[in-house]
Amino acid sequence: MDDRLTEQIRFLIEIDKLKTVHRRAKIIHGDRLENDAEHSWHLAMMALLLKEHANQDVDLLKVLKMLLVHDLVEIDAGDTFAYDAKGHEDKYEREKQAAKRLFGMLPPDQERELTELWEEFERMETIEARFASALDRLQPLIHNHLNDGDTWQTYGITSGQVTARNRKIAEGSEKLWELAQSIIAKSVEQGILAE
Amino acid sequence: MDDRLTEQIRFLIEIDKLKTVHRRAKIIHGDRLENDAEHSWHLAMMALLLKEHANQDVDLLKVLKMLLVHDLVEIDAGDTFAYDAKGHEDKYEREKQAAKRLFGMLPPDQERELTELWEEFERMETIEARFASALDRLQPLIHNHLNDGDTWQTYGITSGQVTARNRKIAEGSEKLWELAQSIIAKSVEQGILAE
Repeated sequence: MDDRLTEQIRFLIEIDKLKTVHRRAKIIHGDRLENDAEHSWHLAMMALLLKEHANQDVDLLKVLKMLLVHDLVEIDAGDTFAYDAKGHEDKYEREKQAAKRLFGMLPPDQERELTELWEEFERMETIEARFASALDRLQPLIHNHLNDGDTWQTYGITSGQVTARNRKIAEGSEKLWELAQSIIAKSVEQGILAE
Repeated sequence: MDDRLTEQIRFLIEIDKLKTVHRRAKIIHGDRLENDAEHSWHLAMMALLLKEHANQDVDLLKVLKMLLVHDLVEIDAGDTFAYDAKGHEDKYEREKQAAKRLFGMLPPDQERELTELWEEFERMETIEARFASALDRLQPLIHNHLNDGDTWQTYGITSGQVTARNRKIAEGSEKLWELAQSIIAKSVEQGILAE
């Protein structure tokens, strides 16, 4: 086996670990926390089916690549809870170290490609990154709504916090932000999200 | 929310069930069976990184879409074990019914798109389907090799069966078939796969 293929396979074995990084929200159809790998698959399916609702025409291949790759850094850095202000202080530094180690396992051209995809997602400047990020926010909102506000109640999250966090969905899709607002309103109405 | 978006979101909630469909192989970094959703993510990452080893230039977007979608029918039809001859007799019929119900939840144009992607994958005729299928065979081979032949031993699978099953990898990638052969040989040598 040549060096290039060896490096690629070693990386693909290493990232199996994403299946063991747990998020704060449960899956919808089962009583356990979701992991980052299945979450990334779910977001990719959302991109495939909701693409038409992006504010501008997006390059779907770029969006899919970003979504597949965006959480890999959590293998080393762990999942930082969306409402953990302290965890967010050094989040970027921790994840940058992780990107260096993980993507550094790959041949240089692929290290560059994955690093750029991850950074593009994080910066949220391109239309693809904004749409990908909108899906990454909308998905746990749907999960929490359908799981009777489970995560919100465990961590004492209010509708104000949820609205502030998810407002950025509008930058990727006004249409999905409307949907998000209706989910938040309904959750408050049902008493599963505190006002 | 308009009807189209409602249908899309209902479908995206339904397919969360893929996270509860278990395969026969374990994840590499943990002592539990892999589920179809995280498996699909892993295959998509393989496509992204191993594309250069396909026998012919493939349309990566098409490959990714197929891999994301290819196991959805197992939500209704269940995972049919690669070496279960009896299960394979009615596999296509069971999965066709599943495709009809599941993809039928979507707006007609998207129902058509997903049905076509799934059928293209199943038929293994296009270069994209052959490459996607090669990855779908290679991945559990790597898992079983690294998990000390776990699934092979549980079900009494021999190297002859593994070779017969995986020979089709060559149709998508000669290079990855070489790799697969070396993994099979090494597994026999290590005594974790019966001859």
